[in-house]
Amino acid sequence: MTALTAITERTSYRGRYKNTKILREDLIKIMEAGLSAPSGCNKQTTSLIAVDDADLLSKLHELIGKPNAKTAPAMICVLTQKMIAYRDRVFNIQDYSAAIENMLITIVELGYQSCWYEGQITDTDAIGRKMADILGVPGDYDLVCFLPVGIAEEPLSRPDKKHFEERAWFNGFRTKG
Amino acid sequence: MTALTAITERTSYRGRYKNTKILREDLIKIMEAGLSAPSGCNKQTTSLIAVDDADLLSKLHELIGKPNAKTAPAMICVLTQKMIAYRDRVFNIQDYSAAIENMLITIVELGYQSCWYEGQITDTDAIGRKMADILGVPGDYDLVCFLPVGIAEEPLSRPDKKHFEERAWFNGFRTKG
Repeated sequence: MTALTAITERTSYRGRYKNTKILREDLIKIMEAGLSAPSGCNKQTTSLIAVDDADLLSKLHELIGKPNAKTAPAMICVLTQKMIAYRDRVFNIQDYSAAIENMLITIVELGYQSCWYEGQITDTDAIGRKMADILGVPGDYDLVCFLPVGIAEEPLSRPDKKHFEERAWFNGFRTKG
Repeated sequence: MTALTAITERTSYRGRYKNTKILREDLIKIMEAGLSAPSGCNKQTTSLIAVDDADLLSKLHELIGKPNAKTAPAMICVLTQKMIAYRDRVFNIQDYSAAIENMLITIVELGYQSCWYEGQITDTDAIGRKMADILGVPGDYDLVCFLPVGIAEEPLSRPDKKHFEERAWFNGFRTKG
């Protein structure tokens, strides 16, 4: 699959997953893609934990609550450290977002589906912190996102998006330059 | 090129570029990749302006100052709108970062190089705002990043990165689970 195909095929999948184990080899490829993302001043603020242990998955999903991605045989938890890149500038959100996008693209290329779950675990009820505690993650790391990994059992859907001309231009704002 | 190859081949290129015009068709593909990125609650907070007009490029580089990417025959400016996704939650940094990563990967796949220039134009001297003014971008959009696009004239280099085992684990923090 070309990169551009994987990028445009990627969509947020919220359906049930098939009960098919994910090869460790594939989880490693996905995480390697994540860690290949650039980071502000090369601070490498993003770390990852792949979870494929059934008991652990079930404990984490108990915390997450809603049925989202509960059937996925694996998930990747995204950890971030809010490090200074230079002076007072911090780029850890940019860093982990680029890493997540790399992983989502690779997940699609390997024949799986996923979805970027962030708001749900970084809200005032601090589910991400509780997940981090279960995984033994120290307090200087924040668990900000999880990506389920699995084979889709239901059809994919795509949200409506604005047309290209409404969001991309040449040589000026809203111009075709 | 597979997605995983493009992802791992991507690196931050800061050298000179060849004086070879970039096809509009390629700039469109790169921007389409950017707009294919997911966004929190599908708010589509990212917009893009490709600049391939020589005079305009020269004006923008006068603002940017340092010789970074001055020789690139095109650049893509990344605009963001700080929109509420729900309640008080805002995900526009995540949104544009995923869009940027998609574009960087596609740039590599098409045989070009680039680099994520953000800190340099979003610092206290507000170069991004001045660039936005030249491009006619209204005040409710922030110009937060530019990506040069061109064929590398110098060898690529890669920063040292921590080993996989120092940043990625299975079923727990720093465990091989």
